[in-house]
Amino acid sequence: MSITKLLNTNHVRWMDAEGVLESDIVISSRVRLARNLDKVPFPHLLNNESGQESLKAIKEAWEKSNYEGLKQLDLLTFDQIGDLDRQILVEKHLISPNHAGSSDGFRGLMVNCSGSMAIMINEEDHLRIQCLLPGLQLEECFKEVIKLDDAFEETLDFAFDDRRGYLTSCPTNVGTGMRASMMLHLPALSISGQAAYIFQNISQLGMTVRGLYGEGTEAQGNFFQLSNQVTLGQTEEDINSNLIAITEQIVEQERLLRTKLISEMKYQLEDRVGRAYGILTNARLITSKEALALLSDVRLGADAGIIKNIKIEGLNELVVAIRPAHLQKKVGREMDATQRDVERAAVIKEKLLASQGING
Amino acid sequence: MSITKLLNTNHVRWMDAEGVLESDIVISSRVRLARNLDKVPFPHLLNNESGQESLKAIKEAWEKSNYEGLKQLDLLTFDQIGDLDRQILVEKHLISPNHAGSSDGFRGLMVNCSGSMAIMINEEDHLRIQCLLPGLQLEECFKEVIKLDDAFEETLDFAFDDRRGYLTSCPTNVGTGMRASMMLHLPALSISGQAAYIFQNISQLGMTVRGLYGEGTEAQGNFFQLSNQVTLGQTEEDINSNLIAITEQIVEQERLLRTKLISEMKYQLEDRVGRAYGILTNARLITSKEALALLSDVRLGADAGIIKNIKIEGLNELVVAIRPAHLQKKVGREMDATQRDVERAAVIKEKLLASQGING
Repeated sequence: MSITKLLNTNHVRWMDAEGVLESDIVISSRVRLARNLDKVPFPHLLNNESGQESLKAIKEAWEKSNYEGLKQLDLLTFDQIGDLDRQILVEKHLISPNHAGSSDGFRGLMVNCSGSMAIMINEEDHLRIQCLLPGLQLEECFKEVIKLDDAFEETLDFAFDDRRGYLTSCPTNVGTGMRASMMLHLPALSISGQAAYIFQNISQLGMTVRGLYGEGTEAQGNFFQLSNQVTLGQTEEDINSNLIAITEQIVEQERLLRTKLISEMKYQLEDRVGRAYGILTNARLITSKEALALLSDVRLGADAGIIKNIKIEGLNELVVAIRPAHLQKKVGREMDATQRDVERAAVIKEKLLASQGING
Repeated sequence: MSITKLLNTNHVRWMDAEGVLESDIVISSRVRLARNLDKVPFPHLLNNESGQESLKAIKEAWEKSNYEGLKQLDLLTFDQIGDLDRQILVEKHLISPNHAGSSDGFRGLMVNCSGSMAIMINEEDHLRIQCLLPGLQLEECFKEVIKLDDAFEETLDFAFDDRRGYLTSCPTNVGTGMRASMMLHLPALSISGQAAYIFQNISQLGMTVRGLYGEGTEAQGNFFQLSNQVTLGQTEEDINSNLIAITEQIVEQERLLRTKLISEMKYQLEDRVGRAYGILTNARLITSKEALALLSDVRLGADAGIIKNIKIEGLNELVVAIRPAHLQKKVGREMDATQRDVERAAVIKEKLLASQGING
């Protein structure tokens, strides 16, 4: 079963980096569509009975469909897995923290074996169809979610209003029901202080910036999630091309600044990268926050050729492998914060020394 | 010539550690005697002519003596070597910073090839006879300086007053003219904050505490130089046994605290040591102050068995090899602070990786 595999390995599709467009700066692209069943109460109003009906309708649409992309998904309801496994799914960006909080039998997840396609069932909306791919692949993500959307629509009636578009549980999603986002790694813009300046003004462009785990999370490890704020009055295509254009500008600025750092502050940069690598490969205790900050420096060093033989894919995996649920899943028991700091340090050391090789 | 060798290698005798008593905590023991020629003005009153006379008298005593310990010394006057080389001698603890400031032809140094015996000529006093040995060997140091003192007295008349003892340029040395000191490495007492408490009250015992380079220097790298303050009204033997007794008490407290750290804060200690090792072996730029602090942690780790295969002797050498004059001597040119930080990082990395081996 796809989900069992996803729960027991670190790797999911968005962590790939080789041969992926802009993967040194754009970690991943993501599109999700919010869809609701017509004439069924929104999920926050569901009780067990109406929830089961909603789930049943979705399940039937899945079973009836001939679309390969839908048939290859597994379906799992949250009464079948424990809290820790749901947290694992959050840490891999396959479900939301909010969705993970429930063990209701009418809530769940449909997912493919690589984790690139994931559909939350009865989260904030009846369906949240997500495609998550590595690098700059927003249009590919959009194509995939639209295909799934179409496949469901063969059977299901979605709540739709001719004037307002798709109706959603939260008014901020009404219209396209689409959220498109890019996860960006911007160490040079952060170090120089320019990231704050850029992102201050981004809301005027209908965009918003969040941290590694979306809404309400801090931008740790110089990771920034850039997404559309507006869902109404623009087509999906316009939203996506707008987001891509802004992303490309940011990527260009990050590249320029990296080149400047390398030429003007060579020793300081090598020092920063070297120290990060030295601490990560020798610490015995490390918090998640510090680890992400140091992994950001190591990643910059790998991108700049200061550290050789470190795979970006491995660094992407580490970002997830050092989270609390993944650490506890690996060890097979609950751990307090200090125990996790010990285990986290061990996981990082092992991974970095396996790929190896600082080049002074 | 002994001095040429001493200027071109890092190692001097006090850096030895193997088979030396208490060498994990007591880096070195040192005794120096201040002696002045009778009826010759003190050095600060010397001009070139009277200075040359003072030097000549000392040189003659050296040449006439049959004592092996005196015959095996080399004599070098400061018109023969440059500023950088005199700084090298300071950094090795063979002459004082004050003495290094002069290039007068009547000032100089007598030294043996291991650097354990060193006599400053026409520094603050006409003769400053020093013996510097690794570990807790204060009595051995005293024996050696007394033998040299006796050898000189066969020929020279020293300024001596029956009531006051040996007369010296500075009144704080009158009496025995002796300064005995121990260089201690006290990381556990420092980390716990107890070092400050102990040393606050040490002056009441006729003792004083200084940093790595004596008077007026800060205690960097958790190195503390403990020495007698009083030179009058006590015999040399009493001063030495007093200093040894206090040192042994401090050593015992340091040992107790280390055991406590290892048993109660195992992870934190391993983390501290690991990070220090990681930074030292991967930094590209490092200041002397930071390097000494981290080398202190690595040394503690080596003593505690957390890091294997690191020789204490090599760490002692590093404390000197990372000083400005040694770095510039090695590279063969003057360097600014940043260039020294780069070279210092390279020297440390090379030395630590040569001995190798962190044990997580």
